[in-house]
Amino acid sequence: MPSVSVRGEQMPASPIRRLVHYATEAEQRGIKVYRLNIGQPDVPTPPQAFEALRHIDRKVLEYSPSEGLRSLRVKLRDYYKRYNIDVDVDDIIVTTGGSEAVLFAFMACLDPGDEIIVPEPAYANYMAFAISAGAKIVTIPSSIDDGFELPPVEKFEELITPRTKGILICNPNNPTGYLYTMKEMLQIRDLVLRHDLFLFSDEVYREFCYTGAPYISAFHLPGIEEQVVLIDSVSKRYNECGIRIGALITKHKELKKNVMKFCQARLSPPLLGQIVAEASIDTPAEYMLETYNEYVERRKFLVDRINRIPGCYTPIPMGAFYTVVRLPVDDADDFCRWCLTDFDYEGETVFMAPASGFYTTPGRGLNEVRMAYVLNRADLARAMVVLEKALEAYNSRAK
Amino acid sequence: MPSVSVRGEQMPASPIRRLVHYATEAEQRGIKVYRLNIGQPDVPTPPQAFEALRHIDRKVLEYSPSEGLRSLRVKLRDYYKRYNIDVDVDDIIVTTGGSEAVLFAFMACLDPGDEIIVPEPAYANYMAFAISAGAKIVTIPSSIDDGFELPPVEKFEELITPRTKGILICNPNNPTGYLYTMKEMLQIRDLVLRHDLFLFSDEVYREFCYTGAPYISAFHLPGIEEQVVLIDSVSKRYNECGIRIGALITKHKELKKNVMKFCQARLSPPLLGQIVAEASIDTPAEYMLETYNEYVERRKFLVDRINRIPGCYTPIPMGAFYTVVRLPVDDADDFCRWCLTDFDYEGETVFMAPASGFYTTPGRGLNEVRMAYVLNRADLARAMVVLEKALEAYNSRAK
Repeated sequence: MPSVSVRGEQMPASPIRRLVHYATEAEQRGIKVYRLNIGQPDVPTPPQAFEALRHIDRKVLEYSPSEGLRSLRVKLRDYYKRYNIDVDVDDIIVTTGGSEAVLFAFMACLDPGDEIIVPEPAYANYMAFAISAGAKIVTIPSSIDDGFELPPVEKFEELITPRTKGILICNPNNPTGYLYTMKEMLQIRDLVLRHDLFLFSDEVYREFCYTGAPYISAFHLPGIEEQVVLIDSVSKRYNECGIRIGALITKHKELKKNVMKFCQARLSPPLLGQIVAEASIDTPAEYMLETYNEYVERRKFLVDRINRIPGCYTPIPMGAFYTVVRLPVDDADDFCRWCLTDFDYEGETVFMAPASGFYTTPGRGLNEVRMAYVLNRADLARAMVVLEKALEAYNSRAK
Repeated sequence: MPSVSVRGEQMPASPIRRLVHYATEAEQRGIKVYRLNIGQPDVPTPPQAFEALRHIDRKVLEYSPSEGLRSLRVKLRDYYKRYNIDVDVDDIIVTTGGSEAVLFAFMACLDPGDEIIVPEPAYANYMAFAISAGAKIVTIPSSIDDGFELPPVEKFEELITPRTKGILICNPNNPTGYLYTMKEMLQIRDLVLRHDLFLFSDEVYREFCYTGAPYISAFHLPGIEEQVVLIDSVSKRYNECGIRIGALITKHKELKKNVMKFCQARLSPPLLGQIVAEASIDTPAEYMLETYNEYVERRKFLVDRINRIPGCYTPIPMGAFYTVVRLPVDDADDFCRWCLTDFDYEGETVFMAPASGFYTTPGRGLNEVRMAYVLNRADLARAMVVLEKALEAYNSRAK
């Protein structure tokens, strides 16, 4: 039997995924599972998206251009203008979700052995895409004790080697909900400039900032416009994760050419998703505001409630719809599994993401979980009751 | 300015793509361009596909499972049964087009430096995906003079090294339209067995076989069931290239696990495409037969007509909807460009794919082009008139 690739063996198997089948089994036993584990919100996709589908007037569902439909790219350009992100239509390459944008960014910028620096905890799939590209992610730790603020610039400098090709940030952050300050962004800019690096900036949660101040994009940082590789997606803002439409945006001419070769090899991004995404950009401000207000309320409720459970702590996340929570347990992996396999309170339990999957430094985040506040207020309230009971039962169980 | 990846520089820039903008420019000058260059047929997508879109009854366009919707995988299993391809639902992983199936097959089977043997001429993007995976494609030449039949088995043996991990075939073949015989398939089976290799079998043109005999799938070959990696796509058979739904099928347990890690990293295949693909599998036999008959007619017409143009020759392709044609020119790249930039006959011209992009051996295929018979009979007839005039003019022009 021929053997599989070592590369594949190295790909991370996320602890969340290992838990998914326990959650399904719990549901099969008739237990209600509050799923705080993934970024799949319950907010409806805007009606404009479905309208567009009903009105498709084509005879053939044909290939679209490899860089995406021009009409979508024009709308995206106008959308970015609203955020003072000044890019040309030709700077925008439509991808199959933000995922493909990350993969192609790595493939087109990094050679095997090249390194990028990423603050941890970090979205676990960056690691997977880096392994796909043969590149190395070097993590720089941030801590729940500091509210996940960016480590000082000297800590970055210590990690830079001749193979360092870039820095990656996710802003607002998944999993922490952290929103980088202007001061931090300018520090990153200086680093990128001084060491001639790419700045990969994943901004898919742009709409979800709770400071009241305007969003700071990597493209707002003066002097590094051609070094920024912006990763975007319509998934989160219009709640249409399944259509798989994202974008890679760059003003670096050679990079654009390089990325396009990977785009051409896979022929085209999904046509139907592009039609839906284009219509979604016309979603009225009221929908966006309503969604925003909903998350503001959920966040306030969740953070207050968590911090009133004995031994639990979470900082106040300023963006996205996640927060990392420290629990009064030694091994959050085990606790999360136990909640699904050995526990229920009045026929209900919770599914949380152990934070260990977001750290690469051994020993970090062992007592932390990520919660996504993607459920309605009533469900969140009930989930917190169940969590509190679970912690009591777990910590008083016979071992 | 940070430099881009060497990997990206190595990615092939297809000669077809270089010609696309000349074709667009010709059209902008008011010239009608007969596009024989790509596999984008003019046959309408089945009405079942559009019906499914109009009846989507969901509130959220959410992520689907990483391996694809179970309902689609069940339908695919039943579809394969019709071709005596006996696979379980769990053997079928839905991908974003056949393209992603090739990429993930390479990523999950091959490590940097590993080699696979591919008969040339070959679909150019195999090369691109191999470069993405850091693997090496070793080509074994087939020739228009032999009707593109498989080279003798000894020629394969000569190319096998300790790094050889697999053989890739595309059957029926793009670009040649060649259909492998049972004798050839058994030869490949023996090689795969003797050297413990993977057999990557791209079968996306399965519906388009013109011999009257049943289709021979790699999964029909006894004794190598766990070594076969089948690449499939709904694009060609239901003429819905834009929905980006394909499949990777394997019975190799470790490989399945490895492929799933790449699937999980990109979260999910396109939801809307899966809904359309599922509905398309119910396309009535009449539609499939009508499409088939249409291609049979076009093929007959095109091959007869080409072989009556002085100096032109094409073998009779037994499958797919392509044929490779030898032209009475020294440099088909130049001729194809010239047709778009310097020529028209009564306001019309032709766009063909230079075959050089399908060969890696230097000097091969220089006087060949690939034609896709994806236009209706009247347009094909007119395109052949224009081609004949173009060859006359090209060969008598002042140089």
